[in-house]
Amino acid sequence: MFTIDAYTPARVIFGAGRLKELGSVSLPGKKALICVTQDGLMEKLGIQKRVTDLLKENGTEYVVFDRVQPNPTQSGVMAAAALAEKENCDFVIGLGGGSSVDTAKATAIMMKNPGVLWDYAQTGTGKNQSVSCAVPIVTISTTCGTGTETDPYCVITNEETKEKLDFAMDQIFPALSFIDPELMCSLPHKLTLYQGFDALFHLAECYITNEHQNHLVDLYAEDGIKMVAHNLPLVAKDGNNLEARTCMCYAADILAGYTQALCSTTSHHIIAQTIGGQFPAVVHGESLLMIAESYYKKVKQFRPALLDELGEFCGVLRDGSDPGQGFVTALKQLMDITGVRELYSMSAEGITEADFQIIADVTVDNTGIDFEKYEITKADIIQILKESYR
Amino acid sequence: MFTIDAYTPARVIFGAGRLKELGSVSLPGKKALICVTQDGLMEKLGIQKRVTDLLKENGTEYVVFDRVQPNPTQSGVMAAAALAEKENCDFVIGLGGGSSVDTAKATAIMMKNPGVLWDYAQTGTGKNQSVSCAVPIVTISTTCGTGTETDPYCVITNEETKEKLDFAMDQIFPALSFIDPELMCSLPHKLTLYQGFDALFHLAECYITNEHQNHLVDLYAEDGIKMVAHNLPLVAKDGNNLEARTCMCYAADILAGYTQALCSTTSHHIIAQTIGGQFPAVVHGESLLMIAESYYKKVKQFRPALLDELGEFCGVLRDGSDPGQGFVTALKQLMDITGVRELYSMSAEGITEADFQIIADVTVDNTGIDFEKYEITKADIIQILKESYR
Repeated sequence: MFTIDAYTPARVIFGAGRLKELGSVSLPGKKALICVTQDGLMEKLGIQKRVTDLLKENGTEYVVFDRVQPNPTQSGVMAAAALAEKENCDFVIGLGGGSSVDTAKATAIMMKNPGVLWDYAQTGTGKNQSVSCAVPIVTISTTCGTGTETDPYCVITNEETKEKLDFAMDQIFPALSFIDPELMCSLPHKLTLYQGFDALFHLAECYITNEHQNHLVDLYAEDGIKMVAHNLPLVAKDGNNLEARTCMCYAADILAGYTQALCSTTSHHIIAQTIGGQFPAVVHGESLLMIAESYYKKVKQFRPALLDELGEFCGVLRDGSDPGQGFVTALKQLMDITGVRELYSMSAEGITEADFQIIADVTVDNTGIDFEKYEITKADIIQILKESYR
Repeated sequence: MFTIDAYTPARVIFGAGRLKELGSVSLPGKKALICVTQDGLMEKLGIQKRVTDLLKENGTEYVVFDRVQPNPTQSGVMAAAALAEKENCDFVIGLGGGSSVDTAKATAIMMKNPGVLWDYAQTGTGKNQSVSCAVPIVTISTTCGTGTETDPYCVITNEETKEKLDFAMDQIFPALSFIDPELMCSLPHKLTLYQGFDALFHLAECYITNEHQNHLVDLYAEDGIKMVAHNLPLVAKDGNNLEARTCMCYAADILAGYTQALCSTTSHHIIAQTIGGQFPAVVHGESLLMIAESYYKKVKQFRPALLDELGEFCGVLRDGSDPGQGFVTALKQLMDITGVRELYSMSAEGITEADFQIIADVTVDNTGIDFEKYEITKADIIQILKESYR
């Protein structure tokens, strides 16, 4: 008998060309703090000007915080919150990829609560204080993969403790998310693939942890995985394929966001986040891909039926002879056809075998998560890293 | 290229036995106005005492408004709002079926806005004034069909003008909905069928009006219709089949609510609501069923592909020889297997052929809706009523 806990309150305006509605839609405040990355990419692409012009059209004031880093940091968030306070902003806009949106989400917390962000971190060295409320959050995505547009999470790194932690709270569901696939056509090939696989893993991991309990999670994950399996090779081949981009955005930013709002990812994400915390230059999708094949070979041993179902969503048929091989095969095929393996390696990122023990230790001991439920041990993590190393 | 407007903010606690969580969940107020029907059914079934005991356990005060009528009225809503004001209630609980929940929703409006309810009606003789806000709404359903648990609508009748109108506004999305299929096992056979078909029509009608635009609507409608086609015959045969009840609740109260939140029903619902407005003893599902077969024979002429897809969701295969017959056949089969036709007739409800003109006139002229978009004329409505008459 299934149960459902449903709560997906983000309002979404999704579709090619729909960013223009920012000029007329009802916004949740009078003055926005716009968070963008420090590389100036939004400005170079002309997207930042488009957004600020649309805000003017809407009669809404704004100030830009343009110091967001990849793997965004607590100190970045605190600087953004200080600017927002100085400028009397009453809502935030995350413009760009996951880093900008997650900075905006964390800043929304710090615009309404005292102290520093880590006072509210719920795991690791966080003080787990309760958040009273946050200012409203608007997201305008130019990348497609995290699901942060529709989920209650942000991921922030503490530079001092080298922790990269999830913040999970209802207060940081976006009030309004613009998902305009036209903006994604500018996404570089590498990031297109990293984020596409990130979305795939969100969907697959939630499908696995859900274990058929919440029927909505199964519904979203199945549709999303089918979309990714069909469309990721198409956007890998041609980043301007707007129809395939639209399908990828739907899978990544709506369906995968919903599954994460309703369910949780597996240890795959926790291990990958530890890698990102220890090696900040490794982007999120890359760290997931580094260990993915070995990781799912391990999961195959204890969730074979679920992995075969995931494989079927990707079009891999099964004859029952090798239970659980379905998703392992599907993943290999998707990695082959998109050529993603050529884009990264642990060695190129400066990771050595000497780092495996610390990655395993931090993952299991320092994330503050009860790791036993994942059925993956420190020894398993080290084995996965060894198998993945090249 | 599809677009999506997503906004489904109701928090849902769904599953057999989960009403007990009312005792511990965070509620959106300190004192509830509980709306129940005047027939005392909730008290007789012991559900009202269970709910008030759980509220006490939660430390929440309450007062009961026990004068909700079938086809709930403006005067009922105004009486409920007066009681809420006198008793200083700060949120509402709709306990029971659509009548109680819709009364609670309309009362939530009137607890925050001056005048009478029809000042805020958006169609018909309503004054279409804007609603500033409403108090938070909690629903506890004992029936399964309207989708009001997760949608932004309520349907209220004005006794003076004989209008039965939809109120549609974001302010009346429930904050929290308990959907516990165990409570549905007490639902009488007749209402089980009427409401099951109501859910089917919500899903089918939204699928038709969506015309494959919003992919989420297609996703919800397809899953919901498959659930209804499989499970409605099972609950018709055995009302205590908890697994089938669970599936019906999921289809009716979550998926059909979501489709209605994201899309609109067709003229089928408008004609049926006019019948309910003119003949208040005719319950909602009954009025839909009265005209359903003739109605879809008409729709078959201009939306054949969509009707064949709907038929396929119900398991009716097609060979292309009679386009659009799919859903017409599926509907006939579902009505045959559940025996629902034996439960009602227009003549038994006192409707005569002399009433057809007024039903057509009120539907097209007095609902304030731009009826032309429905591709159904007054003459069509009269023909549908004639064909349906027995």
